[in-house]
Amino acid sequence: MLKEHYMELALSLAEGVKGQTSPNPPVGAVVVKDGRILGMGAHLKAGTAHAEVHALSAAGEEARGADMYVTLEPCSHYGKTPPCADLVIASGIKRVFIATVDPNPQVSGRGIAKLKAAGIEVETGICEERANRLLQPFFHYIQYKTPFVTMKTAVTADGKTAAYTGHSRWITSEPAREDVHRLRNEHDAILVGVNTVLQDNPLLTTRLPHGGKHPIRVILDTHLRTPVTARVIENKEADTMIICGKDASEEREEALLQKGADIIRLETPEIAIPLLLETLGEEGIMTLLVEGGGEVNASFLQEKAFQQMIIYVAPKLIGGKTAPTFFGGEGFAAMDESVQLSFDKIEMIGPDVKITASQKEG
Amino acid sequence: MLKEHYMELALSLAEGVKGQTSPNPPVGAVVVKDGRILGMGAHLKAGTAHAEVHALSAAGEEARGADMYVTLEPCSHYGKTPPCADLVIASGIKRVFIATVDPNPQVSGRGIAKLKAAGIEVETGICEERANRLLQPFFHYIQYKTPFVTMKTAVTADGKTAAYTGHSRWITSEPAREDVHRLRNEHDAILVGVNTVLQDNPLLTTRLPHGGKHPIRVILDTHLRTPVTARVIENKEADTMIICGKDASEEREEALLQKGADIIRLETPEIAIPLLLETLGEEGIMTLLVEGGGEVNASFLQEKAFQQMIIYVAPKLIGGKTAPTFFGGEGFAAMDESVQLSFDKIEMIGPDVKITASQKEG
Repeated sequence: MLKEHYMELALSLAEGVKGQTSPNPPVGAVVVKDGRILGMGAHLKAGTAHAEVHALSAAGEEARGADMYVTLEPCSHYGKTPPCADLVIASGIKRVFIATVDPNPQVSGRGIAKLKAAGIEVETGICEERANRLLQPFFHYIQYKTPFVTMKTAVTADGKTAAYTGHSRWITSEPAREDVHRLRNEHDAILVGVNTVLQDNPLLTTRLPHGGKHPIRVILDTHLRTPVTARVIENKEADTMIICGKDASEEREEALLQKGADIIRLETPEIAIPLLLETLGEEGIMTLLVEGGGEVNASFLQEKAFQQMIIYVAPKLIGGKTAPTFFGGEGFAAMDESVQLSFDKIEMIGPDVKITASQKEG
Repeated sequence: MLKEHYMELALSLAEGVKGQTSPNPPVGAVVVKDGRILGMGAHLKAGTAHAEVHALSAAGEEARGADMYVTLEPCSHYGKTPPCADLVIASGIKRVFIATVDPNPQVSGRGIAKLKAAGIEVETGICEERANRLLQPFFHYIQYKTPFVTMKTAVTADGKTAAYTGHSRWITSEPAREDVHRLRNEHDAILVGVNTVLQDNPLLTTRLPHGGKHPIRVILDTHLRTPVTARVIENKEADTMIICGKDASEEREEALLQKGADIIRLETPEIAIPLLLETLGEEGIMTLLVEGGGEVNASFLQEKAFQQMIIYVAPKLIGGKTAPTFFGGEGFAAMDESVQLSFDKIEMIGPDVKITASQKEG
């Protein structure tokens, strides 16, 4: 067997827990001796055992002399759990294969150094690209202390998010809409503007056939216009966090607090996106899914304040000069001022196309 | 060797001459005996020899007892050239493999009957789907006597054809723009509205590194506002056909005629798309590429008067509530009134995505 084979397996374990480990990264580990898998594990939830612990626990005494494949450098510091590097050493593992190195300054290179110092053979960079793609939000969060932002939209093939009348149910097919719920499941928080709450009164929960994690609902609502009867307030499946400007009514705040919403009052009268993202980062939100509407999307576009964009394109033409597209606002004046993306993945989901793009560094 | 192998080869020959045989279909033929190819050929231009003639001419006397693979049923009638079925019989071909049957009422099934009557073994339906896809415009033209219409557009990832300022150079990359010239090369005619002529003053010729066929330039110009100094008039590489309403100025017509343009004056004051397409069909235009602008596109959308749509999507976000999209007009009021497409092919062209879609039958 090739070492890539075992690392792919460890990565599959990690990808399986994507979104449920925040603010920790999703990590997978596999313990192998003489071509037989002795243990496998993934980090399941922040504050609980790391991937290495689960894999070594399954392997037990047999781990002695075995190889470990782990998608991210083992930690070397005491966090909520003891350092994994120490455990790996104690278990008698002979060689450790690592997909990618931890950028966390508390860990970076130290876990590897510790393993090597104990006489363990260490090799890094196996399936590194796939690991880096998976860990991108975590790396971003470590570096900037703000969430990794994905903007999501669903449009007709002529780029519209609704007919000129506002009618928009449904643009995409059921499989594509289910895919959006998978996206929600993978995110810590989902963000909309108050206009979307007022117009569509959405639930913003994750609705998947076999359950799923609900992201925190973040509502941008400068003047606290969210009705206490809104579904995002009345429904208790997920937490709701309302961001308002410094001058928002205290009476409205009180009413919403009493209904169980969290209110974050900024120190500015308007909601500036960079400050918003800092605030959400402080709240421990590592991944943020922005689901519009047009004006909120335009603010994120204006600030280039997103890393990823997911566009579901339906095989429909609705037409209409005034039918809305997914960015409101004024937009940029010339093509060379536009925000540059790269298309990372194009796939069919039922009859629709899903485009995954990332913003190119400026 | 499998028969599909030879038919694929015959189809490649046919695909190579796509667009240069109108109003005849592109057809390829391969003659094979004992696994050796004896002759290959394609129909190169209307009025000249058919594919079978070229392939049999290369095979010469050796054709006796050989197999012929031909992408379309051989003709059985005297047109501009003698019937191919007679030639195939005379050549001593033993078996004929046919991808698809000719829908032309003068031919359909008769070529096959003639071959069979002469004792030739005939099998149809080999690689039929690929052949039908290639012959779709020809089948459409035979059935409706109107051009097979492809709408083409280039948009940013947020569905815009320009910035709010009108700036649009360039949305897509050089490879995608070159692909558009390949599209033009494959079409009999290219259509724009007079507003596009007035605003962009385009040449509308095929510009490919190694040459190409220029489509006829069709300008929708109800009131004959096309300036005699427009590039589509002054440039003589391609013919220009201006369609006007019945009340357009005769003086303007005279001026444009003197500059070498063809003028088609309809019997109605406005240009209705169905009548336009009938007229273009009568002019022998089998394939029409519609390149906008927004109002012309909207007319085609309103009438659902197109078969195919090609969308180049660039990895750029320009934003802007008022930035134009590829359909002007009012549009449909609700999602279930929208025009239904199916996405046939999604491919990357350089950094851009090319979506080929066809309109679903209502």
